Amino acid sequence: MEKVDLDELDFAILSFLQKDGRMSFTIIAEKLKVSIGTVRTRLNKLIEEKTINIIGRVDPAKVGFGAYAHIAIFVRPATFNEKVAKKIASLPEVSFLAGTSGDYDLEVDVMCRDNTHLEEFVTQISKIEGVHQTKTTIYFKVYKYAQPDLNLIKEGYGIA
Amino acid sequence: MEKVDLDELDFAILSFLQKDGRMSFTIIAEKLKVSIGTVRTRLNKLIEEKTINIIGRVDPAKVGFGAYAHIAIFVRPATFNEKVAKKIASLPEVSFLAGTSGDYDLEVDVMCRDNTHLEEFVTQISKIEGVHQTKTTIYFKVYKYAQPDLNLIKEGYGIA
Amino acid sequence: MEKVDLDELDFAILSFLQKDGRMSFTIIAEKLKVSIGTVRTRLNKLIEEKTINIIGRVDPAKVGFGAYAHIAIFVRPATFNEKVAKKIASLPEVSFLAGTSGDYDLEVDVMCRDNTHLEEFVTQISKIEGVHQTKTTIYFKVYKYAQPDLNLIKEGYGIA
Amino acid sequence: MEKVDLDELDFAILSFLQKDGRMSFTIIAEKLKVSIGTVRTRLNKLIEEKTINIIGRVDPAKVGFGAYAHIAIFVRPATFNEKVAKKIASLPEVSFLAGTSGDYDLEVDVMCRDNTHLEEFVTQISKIEGVHQTKTTIYFKVYKYAQPDLNLIKEGYGIA
Amino acid sequence: MEKVDLDELDFAILSFLQKDGRMSFTIIAEKLKVSIGTVRTRLNKLIEEKTINIIGRVDPAKVGFGAYAHIAIFVRPATFNEKVAKKIASLPEVSFLAGTSGDYDLEVDVMCRDNTHLEEFVTQISKIEGVHQTKTTIYFKVYKYAQPDLNLIKEGYGIA
Amino acid sequence: MEKVDLDELDFAILSFLQKDGRMSFTIIAEKLKVSIGTVRTRLNKLIEEKTINIIGRVDPAKVGFGAYAHIAIFVRPATFNEKVAKKIASLPEVSFLAGTSGDYDLEVDVMCRDNTHLEEFVTQISKIEGVHQTKTTIYFKVYKYAQPDLNLIKEGYGIA
Amino acid sequence: MEKVDLDELDFAILSFLQKDGRMSFTIIAEKLKVSIGTVRTRLNKLIEEKTINIIGRVDPAKVGFGAYAHIAIFVRPATFNEKVAKKIASLPEVSFLAGTSGDYDLEVDVMCRDNTHLEEFVTQISKIEGVHQTKTTIYFKVYKYAQPDLNLIKEGYGIA
Amino acid sequence: MEKVDLDELDFAILSFLQKDGRMSFTIIAEKLKVSIGTVRTRLNKLIEEKTINIIGRVDPAKVGFGAYAHIAIFVRPATFNEKVAKKIASLPEVSFLAGTSGDYDLEVDVMCRDNTHLEEFVTQISKIEGVHQTKTTIYFKVYKYAQPDLNLIKEGYGIA
Repeated sequence: MEKVDLDELDFAILSFLQKDGRMSFTIIAEKLKVSIGTVRTRLNKLIEEKTINIIGRVDPAKVGFGAYAHIAIFVRPATFNEKVAKKIASLPEVSFLAGTSGDYDLEVDVMCRDNTHLEEFVTQISKIEGVHQTKTTIYFKVYKYAQPDLNLIKEGYGIA
Repeated sequence: MEKVDLDELDFAILSFLQKDGRMSFTIIAEKLKVSIGTVRTRLNKLIEEKTINIIGRVDPAKVGFGAYAHIAIFVRPATFNEKVAKKIASLPEVSFLAGTSGDYDLEVDVMCRDNTHLEEFVTQISKIEGVHQTKTTIYFKVYKYAQPDLNLIKEGYGIA
Repeated sequence: MEKVDLDELDFAILSFLQKDGRMSFTIIAEKLKVSIGTVRTRLNKLIEEKTINIIGRVDPAKVGFGAYAHIAIFVRPATFNEKVAKKIASLPEVSFLAGTSGDYDLEVDVMCRDNTHLEEFVTQISKIEGVHQTKTTIYFKVYKYAQPDLNLIKEGYGIA
Repeated sequence: MEKVDLDELDFAILSFLQKDGRMSFTIIAEKLKVSIGTVRTRLNKLIEEKTINIIGRVDPAKVGFGAYAHIAIFVRPATFNEKVAKKIASLPEVSFLAGTSGDYDLEVDVMCRDNTHLEEFVTQISKIEGVHQTKTTIYFKVYKYAQPDLNLIKEGYGIA
Repeated sequence: MEKVDLDELDFAILSFLQKDGRMSFTIIAEKLKVSIGTVRTRLNKLIEEKTINIIGRVDPAKVGFGAYAHIAIFVRPATFNEKVAKKIASLPEVSFLAGTSGDYDLEVDVMCRDNTHLEEFVTQISKIEGVHQTKTTIYFKVYKYAQPDLNLIKEGYGIA
Repeated sequence: MEKVDLDELDFAILSFLQKDGRMSFTIIAEKLKVSIGTVRTRLNKLIEEKTINIIGRVDPAKVGFGAYAHIAIFVRPATFNEKVAKKIASLPEVSFLAGTSGDYDLEVDVMCRDNTHLEEFVTQISKIEGVHQTKTTIYFKVYKYAQPDLNLIKEGYGIA
Repeated sequence: MEKVDLDELDFAILSFLQKDGRMSFTIIAEKLKVSIGTVRTRLNKLIEEKTINIIGRVDPAKVGFGAYAHIAIFVRPATFNEKVAKKIASLPEVSFLAGTSGDYDLEVDVMCRDNTHLEEFVTQISKIEGVHQTKTTIYFKVYKYAQPDLNLIKEGYGIA
Repeated sequence: MEKVDLDELDFAILSFLQKDGRMSFTIIAEKLKVSIGTVRTRLNKLIEEKTINIIGRVDPAKVGFGAYAHIAIFVRPATFNEKVAKKIASLPEVSFLAGTSGDYDLEVDVMCRDNTHLEEFVTQISKIEGVHQTKTTIYFKVYKYAQPDLNLIKEGYGIA
């Protein structure tokens, strides 16, 4: 794990932005009693290093994605894993893609308009060389979508 | 589905912010050839309605979350589903929680410091009344974390 | 099995109606070279005995049922099987309900407007006493919906 | 989804025919207070568009189909899905065939004379190129076979 | 099913032999009040037609078969089913072999001296072309080994 | 394992009877060059000790058992295992019953007239206290039904 | 994780003992060019802290354990996990016991004389309150039993 | 099973070493009232025959192996089993490797630094020819790691 080096100020900035990604430098600087320039420099570094990524997360149900689903993908032979992952990652419907320790090899989360669109998507990825089997589960209801509390890892940085 | 009403301008604003959550009103206004006030009003409405949520997503591996996992939860009896979901949603380790159509009832994604922390977390939720069984899968490698292309749903709003 | 007694004429009438449920008595009588009265008497008997049931099958996708699904239901304890089946059979979304030999106890096929409606339906049946677990699978694409060829069973009636 | 356009009259006609596929034009016209010609025109259109299909459903147990079963089919590679579906759809024993979101690719419902006939059928489809595995479940007892209430989708057409 | 023709006398003879395979013709004839010749003729016919097979079943645990197991065999491609079955049937350890409707294709019951012998057997069949996977379950304790009551099928022969 | 003590003569007698359960004492004595009395004494001892059991095995398909099936039974709580086994063993349809090392607790093999009879049987055992779940698999085709070669265990008795 | 503090010398001592648990202090001291007293002090500390545990591992097959098995245990409710683990840990047959992230809660590895002994063991643990289900898998053949290379973790201690 | 010949003295020596692998010859000799030479001769023989293996078992958590896991490996075709086992056995992370009777073919226990290291390991073995699928389960907490009581097998050697 290529863990980055963070101090208490970095943590504070990350925490504010986790809650409100558009909080202004002025407000952050005021709250943390540091200069605006310091906040800007720190945040730019955190963004460049990809420690934080500030994104607008569109609520899929609100804008009309009627089929939000989790697709388990079994890749065979295993040597195709990376290739399959790259092809799937490029598809616009995909919001999350990860390799897993479980019985399936890749987990893909997708947002589709409706079940017909979802079916077309599944058919499309089924044709990728190396995709052996897919299993689709609908997310019926999202209860939480958030970032975990950074306090959980502060101790590891020697910050009380 | 309580789909909101969106026009072409809303879509354009959402698309910019999906890519860069901190893009300034000035730049958005310039690009879309509308006034800054219009952009601000629209975005405020989109945020208030919870159509978009601008968050800083911290990369778990970068900051030292060494155990990013997916936990499938089987709830029994089924009437405890909502109660269990609420209790789990309140835990700081949880980054995603949804009810699913599959063999398990709830999917919880968590970020923990390491496998010992993960074990403590699983033990903790196993004690919640109604949690019948849990099954933990490690996310070995995240290939993509993004928002789907809004072009996929434009047609449903009568926008070419 | 309370098998009914059928002769060659019954088979012929059943076959015509399997293909076109509204074929007129006149045409059937002509084709089979029997009187219209005979056709009417025979058909009425077949309908009364519930050997045939003439129904208009609405195509779910055409009229806006966007979530056609198969729900496997696990009943515990097994003595609740009949009771659970009766309650589920009374729900308007249900188009097919059967007890099975497999790992689950009841198979329910439902037609819902969309995944939100499907989620509500699954939540509703999960609250029925005796429903231990449910597992939902979406029917992505229906390739065939028909009646099997009656020729397959003619031999059992001594008809070549 | 290529949803058709339906008005209140269409719904009323469909509802009558769902219950009794042979209800005469005269009676429908009377009940709905429209002309027989209107009913005929409307129904013909609904049938031509394949919105409704009026079929005589023969009760399998009554006529001697002693083995009514559900066969889950796993297709490999996934690109054979359509081809396999077409071949299976042409077999006379098949009453339902659909692609699914689940762990198996195709669901086939068949009606056979007895378990020996069922075994022959399974052996036959196992030989189709692309059929990787089959899993057969017997339908022990059918509790309901019906069409869902059209009232469930009226709202989507703006009909109270 | 090539069901044979049996009358009440056949049933009586079969029933006696199910319980005691060495019951003498004299005793059977006395009990049924028919001639010894009749019993002999009937039994020979039943044996020739393979309706009954009189075997000495050795208790595996008593004579030192320490590993009595059930092996589920998955055959791929399915066209190898018959060939694989024939090869396995010829092995001396096999006491039962059948094709099944379930997730696996063949069920093999074997009696081995101990787990080492069982391991060698499983390795041996794993090398047969077409054997894709095997899954072995130990029979821990046999509670019943018997023939079902012929009374269960008498009715089908018109015998009260 | 309460292994019995067997010598070469015992083995020879057991082997003859495995193949033909009605082979006469005279023929066995001749073949083994011992007195008829010796054969009788030995066999009686083997039968009394339950080392061998001579039974007439009726071919289920030949006499009209149209549904030969394997039922996996899951018992909960585990303490009910013996009680459930005893109740099931007493049912006339049961031809084999054993406790297993696998995911299910008891394996029951049954012979029923047809699937309707099988359904009634499954419903009946589902009502036994302690039966948590059942899973039925049809035996489509029996390829072998035999006793394993006693040569496999001779070595353990010091017999070449 | 309560990781202990180790230096290069500790690693070297641990590595020697991993290979030969009875290597004498004299030889270790010579090889590492330190005093015998240093080796003794270090090893005593490593043993006291439980960093290393020097055990004679008896080869189960060599001494007559004919049934070496892995038992997956499902505990319900989850709150009984610790209690069940403690009871099972005290049984003499158990060589390994761990809580897992998978579908089952505890993995128990046991060495039994034969399958009869194994069956008795499984029956015994099935009676422990909280044991919901067990699934036993035989270890057919052990290919490796060893300690992993300490070089794999040296880097974490800043040792090249 | 190539069971070795052991007498009471062998058993006593093995028992002492199971508990403390470094117990001196002097102390063992004293406790068993035999000469030191006898103990040395016996132990050397037991080690040469590989009846016992005295190893220092390093506690993985203590020294910084943060990911202790069980990997189920499915080999296809089955003929690759031995080859795959040999390749995996040579990897330094592997602490246990066995062929099993279950649904998977090989069980591998590995100790890795963290989940990233574990992911690399799984990727590495996935590339071995013949590895069809892997499924990784984390050992969350080890409750017992020991040798089974030799008293369990004494009887088999005629030792009370």
